[in-house]
Amino acid sequence: MLITEMDKSQCMELLRASTHGRLGCSRDNQPYVVPITYAADGNNLYSFSLTGQKVAWMRDNPKVCVQTDQFQAGREWRSVIAYGRFEELPDRIGWKVQRERAWALLSKQAEWWEPGSVKPAGEVPAPHLFFRIVIDEVTGRHAFTDDQN
Amino acid sequence: MLITEMDKSQCMELLRASTHGRLGCSRDNQPYVVPITYAADGNNLYSFSLTGQKVAWMRDNPKVCVQTDQFQAGREWRSVIAYGRFEELPDRIGWKVQRERAWALLSKQAEWWEPGSVKPAGEVPAPHLFFRIVIDEVTGRHAFTDDQN
Repeated sequence: MLITEMDKSQCMELLRASTHGRLGCSRDNQPYVVPITYAADGNNLYSFSLTGQKVAWMRDNPKVCVQTDQFQAGREWRSVIAYGRFEELPDRIGWKVQRERAWALLSKQAEWWEPGSVKPAGEVPAPHLFFRIVIDEVTGRHAFTDDQN
Repeated sequence: MLITEMDKSQCMELLRASTHGRLGCSRDNQPYVVPITYAADGNNLYSFSLTGQKVAWMRDNPKVCVQTDQFQAGREWRSVIAYGRFEELPDRIGWKVQRERAWALLSKQAEWWEPGSVKPAGEVPAPHLFFRIVIDEVTGRHAFTDDQN
């Protein structure tokens, strides 16, 4: 088994090819990880959520990360992590273009709204929001067996 | 689509049924997420790694989490997060029983050692270590469509 570092363009390619990842956020240095669906565009990952723990934590501390991976035939895999900053796309003047961009990208995905739009039965429905992760840095690793060389 | 909170025994059942998850750690309130393989036993998740970023971060700040999920037929899914504390199992007197427990559990898994035991080509091989996450709290959600009721 060999592992190589992926360069930035390879990392961005995998981020763009995927629509599912794990969002990491942190409060008082306690990490929290939750599955998300997203749409990559340029240097941004767009997503949608009802308000709840992850949004509360990201509002407190916008330093977040998104990890995604891809497992292929044999034992080959790639894993990428994007470090970035949480940014809300509020329903206000000045954010219209960004919100419409988020909507246009996310609505191409079947069931894109599900993970972020449902709440445990019995809970009062919460307001929703669009947000994006502005990527600061990406790193990734590609693992493959010797005979794939 | 309905979502219900999973109780503690349901969460522990899913954690035990899985051997793959995402480990979240944090330094200076910057989260980091990485795939891991683990073996659950009682209130602990055992794992193995070469030293590197995640180990350095966990030594600095032992507050971590492990997230795992399960997607089933249709659109049904379960996702669980375990919050806990990183604990090294050093190769020293006093830790023999725990290290052997980790070894016994992990060695039942095919290729359990791979994600933690390989390093990017060209890097100097790093020492390895066994560790466990001592679980403090688990929460989980189960999503299913109305017609599955």
